[in-house]
Amino acid sequence: MNTFGRNFRCTTFGESHGKAVGAVIDGCPPKISLTEADIQPYLDRRRPGKSPLESGRQEPDQVEILSGTFEGRTTGAPIALIVRNRDHRPGDYDALRDVFRPGHADYTWQAKYGLRDHRGGGRSSGRETLARVAAGAVAVRCLEPYGVAIRGRIVEIHGVTGPEAMEAEIRAARDAGDSVGGIIEVTAAGCPAGLGDPVFLKLDAAIAGAMMSIGAVKGVEIGEGFGAARLLGSEMNDPIIAGGFAGNRAGGILGGISTGQDIIVRAAVKPTPSIRRVQRTVDIAGKEREISIEGRHDPCIAPRIVPVAECMLALVLIDAMLEQAKYRGEE
Amino acid sequence: MNTFGRNFRCTTFGESHGKAVGAVIDGCPPKISLTEADIQPYLDRRRPGKSPLESGRQEPDQVEILSGTFEGRTTGAPIALIVRNRDHRPGDYDALRDVFRPGHADYTWQAKYGLRDHRGGGRSSGRETLARVAAGAVAVRCLEPYGVAIRGRIVEIHGVTGPEAMEAEIRAARDAGDSVGGIIEVTAAGCPAGLGDPVFLKLDAAIAGAMMSIGAVKGVEIGEGFGAARLLGSEMNDPIIAGGFAGNRAGGILGGISTGQDIIVRAAVKPTPSIRRVQRTVDIAGKEREISIEGRHDPCIAPRIVPVAECMLALVLIDAMLEQAKYRGEE
Amino acid sequence: MNTFGRNFRCTTFGESHGKAVGAVIDGCPPKISLTEADIQPYLDRRRPGKSPLESGRQEPDQVEILSGTFEGRTTGAPIALIVRNRDHRPGDYDALRDVFRPGHADYTWQAKYGLRDHRGGGRSSGRETLARVAAGAVAVRCLEPYGVAIRGRIVEIHGVTGPEAMEAEIRAARDAGDSVGGIIEVTAAGCPAGLGDPVFLKLDAAIAGAMMSIGAVKGVEIGEGFGAARLLGSEMNDPIIAGGFAGNRAGGILGGISTGQDIIVRAAVKPTPSIRRVQRTVDIAGKEREISIEGRHDPCIAPRIVPVAECMLALVLIDAMLEQAKYRGEE
Amino acid sequence: MNTFGRNFRCTTFGESHGKAVGAVIDGCPPKISLTEADIQPYLDRRRPGKSPLESGRQEPDQVEILSGTFEGRTTGAPIALIVRNRDHRPGDYDALRDVFRPGHADYTWQAKYGLRDHRGGGRSSGRETLARVAAGAVAVRCLEPYGVAIRGRIVEIHGVTGPEAMEAEIRAARDAGDSVGGIIEVTAAGCPAGLGDPVFLKLDAAIAGAMMSIGAVKGVEIGEGFGAARLLGSEMNDPIIAGGFAGNRAGGILGGISTGQDIIVRAAVKPTPSIRRVQRTVDIAGKEREISIEGRHDPCIAPRIVPVAECMLALVLIDAMLEQAKYRGEE
Repeated sequence: MNTFGRNFRCTTFGESHGKAVGAVIDGCPPKISLTEADIQPYLDRRRPGKSPLESGRQEPDQVEILSGTFEGRTTGAPIALIVRNRDHRPGDYDALRDVFRPGHADYTWQAKYGLRDHRGGGRSSGRETLARVAAGAVAVRCLEPYGVAIRGRIVEIHGVTGPEAMEAEIRAARDAGDSVGGIIEVTAAGCPAGLGDPVFLKLDAAIAGAMMSIGAVKGVEIGEGFGAARLLGSEMNDPIIAGGFAGNRAGGILGGISTGQDIIVRAAVKPTPSIRRVQRTVDIAGKEREISIEGRHDPCIAPRIVPVAECMLALVLIDAMLEQAKYRGEE
Repeated sequence: MNTFGRNFRCTTFGESHGKAVGAVIDGCPPKISLTEADIQPYLDRRRPGKSPLESGRQEPDQVEILSGTFEGRTTGAPIALIVRNRDHRPGDYDALRDVFRPGHADYTWQAKYGLRDHRGGGRSSGRETLARVAAGAVAVRCLEPYGVAIRGRIVEIHGVTGPEAMEAEIRAARDAGDSVGGIIEVTAAGCPAGLGDPVFLKLDAAIAGAMMSIGAVKGVEIGEGFGAARLLGSEMNDPIIAGGFAGNRAGGILGGISTGQDIIVRAAVKPTPSIRRVQRTVDIAGKEREISIEGRHDPCIAPRIVPVAECMLALVLIDAMLEQAKYRGEE
Repeated sequence: MNTFGRNFRCTTFGESHGKAVGAVIDGCPPKISLTEADIQPYLDRRRPGKSPLESGRQEPDQVEILSGTFEGRTTGAPIALIVRNRDHRPGDYDALRDVFRPGHADYTWQAKYGLRDHRGGGRSSGRETLARVAAGAVAVRCLEPYGVAIRGRIVEIHGVTGPEAMEAEIRAARDAGDSVGGIIEVTAAGCPAGLGDPVFLKLDAAIAGAMMSIGAVKGVEIGEGFGAARLLGSEMNDPIIAGGFAGNRAGGILGGISTGQDIIVRAAVKPTPSIRRVQRTVDIAGKEREISIEGRHDPCIAPRIVPVAECMLALVLIDAMLEQAKYRGEE
Repeated sequence: MNTFGRNFRCTTFGESHGKAVGAVIDGCPPKISLTEADIQPYLDRRRPGKSPLESGRQEPDQVEILSGTFEGRTTGAPIALIVRNRDHRPGDYDALRDVFRPGHADYTWQAKYGLRDHRGGGRSSGRETLARVAAGAVAVRCLEPYGVAIRGRIVEIHGVTGPEAMEAEIRAARDAGDSVGGIIEVTAAGCPAGLGDPVFLKLDAAIAGAMMSIGAVKGVEIGEGFGAARLLGSEMNDPIIAGGFAGNRAGGILGGISTGQDIIVRAAVKPTPSIRRVQRTVDIAGKEREISIEGRHDPCIAPRIVPVAECMLALVLIDAMLEQAKYRGEE
């Protein structure tokens, strides 16, 4: 299923080594100003190769809007976005053609589809997130008039916090031919109360599904999250006061609906599966093998997931805003 | 949105103090044997008032199948399940008619809908999970021929493990007019590899959304979950060996698709919001008030959420199995 | 697929001889006044046995609202409606247990599901339309504040118009142990311009799908319909004048979106398949047989389809109104 | 709503004078051989300017596959198709910028979206059908292994049949600066019995919605269609015999499910709204005006709708085949 959302519907396409990745956004409200300049900065943030600590694939990732706008404004028609793949070296993956890389999707996607595109993971590659970020940038553009601001950050890497310590962890992993995981946090400020569609599309449910759909994410929590399991009710409940709440352990969502306070989401990112250290695996004939994965791989994916998570949150929120508009129009 | 699933579509209805709760299941395969006896045990597990530690609302919760079966087998037509509410004492909630209970959905549902059913939370009440459990029981029935077995358990209560210690925490909370949270775990054994529909309905994404949609859940993780954020890649990757994997830190899902190993999910349950201890809140006129919530409330919701979580996992899995059948038929 | 609509989502259930038929409406706006008295008149109109010309099954068809309202107003929670089947005589169908009735769904539903409920057609029975009418009545209630008025009528029976001539055709058919078809027309006045969601949920596309889903309908047309195929462009185009249009050959829909003029829909209803006249068929063993269908069957279904068609149009329109509200709220 | 289908999901984009039109197909089964050569012939059939009787817009309409295939076979990942617009002369439409063309979508799309792309109708243009045809060609490719064959033809133009008479009607209309309508018929042979998903996605309902979504279509019928309204039951019912049916007045669908016989669909196409003859209209200020639409317009759209209708039928059938596969896998 490559469509996300009910009202602001985002369909993505594209593989690691295909011709292009992109998205079609259906249900974007009309009359929103939109050009490539609104989207490109998000792609630039996500792009690999920006820092010595990240993988070296060099892609210009220039977005082009193919439809859905007229004289610089959205028309309500579907908006198609495309980014051509340039710096793909499928040859890098030839040695891996016949083996399943541990921790990757190779084994499971072969089981599901009966075939797999071995070049960089095909559709299971992190490159598909580029399309999500492009679409998310459009969602952010739609949210701006409402005063919604979304910010992401890295909370910890391999259990440590603080920029220098986190950077040291990443270097150490890279030098050891290994990788590290981390925890990221995304916050949305300025959301109105009332967003979310109970019971199955409660806002936190939609957010959890959105975050967990990002490759390498293994856990999602809202507000106190797993910490809430260790609190008393008298500690967890945010007191209600005139004008709002005294505290936000709820992370901005109660009963599956936004309270108007900051929405706080954290996601756990597992360490990059592709490492130089030798690993045990099997080949497609079932024979046990050992592999070492060379090439241009991030020792830690968490920093690159931050913009993706921000964009997924934006997609959830614009979808919920449009849903709520159905009732607002009734007043 | 009160429908869950794409293939095995489950629509629930019913409030805490309405006439009945129930579900309509659309897309259940035909020729599955099904009677009330297949469903009732799940409702009995979920029912309140079974132990001195749980709330006292006494409901017989007898399920009735209204449609969708003929001579004891499903026909492929929609299956309607209904459970009449008996022991509802809406009067218990009169004192709360004009205030918002902290930690509950009162405030946010009022913001969203412009009105709220104050009687026990209306649709936001935990009683709506009864319908999910009834539908989940049908899902379990459909999964049985495949050898899928789902088991849930409580991992910890208020940070402690072990049955006696957990029970002591719950008693202490109740005696103090307070409440405690916990962590539950649900496991599905016997699932085939290949389940899940990337990228947005990856199996873990569907599971995360399903669990987070359960009231009081504030976090969801798969396999190592948040623990993966603190591991090295060489530790996290499960080696692939002839016939499967050596290890299951992945929790049965890689690249969003099942591996064939046990699927392991954990959910964080916040402490029950309704406590006897005095709390600060406001009334519907915005005036600050103090309240103490008396009545029949669980000091810990986690035990009752276990069958709900098992049923949500069953609903996700049968949905994914039917999705995969579209391709299996092609071979 | 037993759910209709995207915003005003109506899931129906129930067979001819099961315990009950009913519907769950999800997405009904909150704060709409609603009681059984708003729905019952529509069921009464649809009920069999009201005239000597119609079938004799005597059903009280009393509707009960099980959820989704509080103090006589909708809450935004799912609304469950139920009607118990009383006067079912499954024994009437025993003689037909092993044969496929020509013109009915027996053969095809057996092919699809691998089994069939022979009692009155099971889920393929016209009785399932009762649930649609109940839900449609709620849709009509929601449309009233907008001034939308929906009216249906019979245009012709067996090629003739005029009440006496049409009645004569029905009597003649019944006396001959045969049946006749007809054409019905449903009109919606007072719709605003702008309804419809191009390209695949254009208003006319949604209406066509809705009408064709009614059993026995074999054709649907809008405005001039098939007559437009025989006009010149200069004849078909409705001139645009200040304040609207001079003419309505378009039937209220242009480019798939409502113009603000009356929406005019016609549906072709085939003759009732169940007739006393002898017909050739096969039994479930594939052996050729002859059957004569006795019992309580309408010689013409068209009159009873009128309220069903009105209700389907109401469901389409309220769904489109809520969809359009997403944009209206933006202005 | 620009996505069609539940299993074989086709999302289209693109306007008359935007950069490109295209489609993303999600849910195409893996391992189907697919290259541009499978799609291009369908686009060539649909292309304008092939005969002196059709409009003169010269477009190469060369399709490019951007994703979803590997080594010439589908992978199960989304398939993106794109066709760049070349011969667009937006200037042709400048004179129409401020008026609403009668019979077109200008008025209604302005009412809905609050703005409109006046260049050739924008998204309401017939050019969006190019994307449907591209996607339909992929659907046809997927249906081939099942032996399903889809054929379309023109039944009548302006009330007359026979190639010479129909051509004469078109010439006469063009010479008069007017246009004519027609009726087309599409047939699908070789479909298995059992396709369709009652009650709301019965096969005929899905087909009706699909055909009515094509611009200029004002009516849809199956089998005898509106003719059934004038038959007796004894005439309409197809007798069932060993091995099938004696007759096919049902048009291949009974109870909303395919019988295994030819599926026969007819659609009524209204005359082209753009005519040279003077028409009354208003401008965007509401002032009454007269216009004459010059330029490259077909005097009859019906011939160009035939391939579009074939492709829509293919999309419905592959979607239904995949739906049915969920159950077939169970046997």
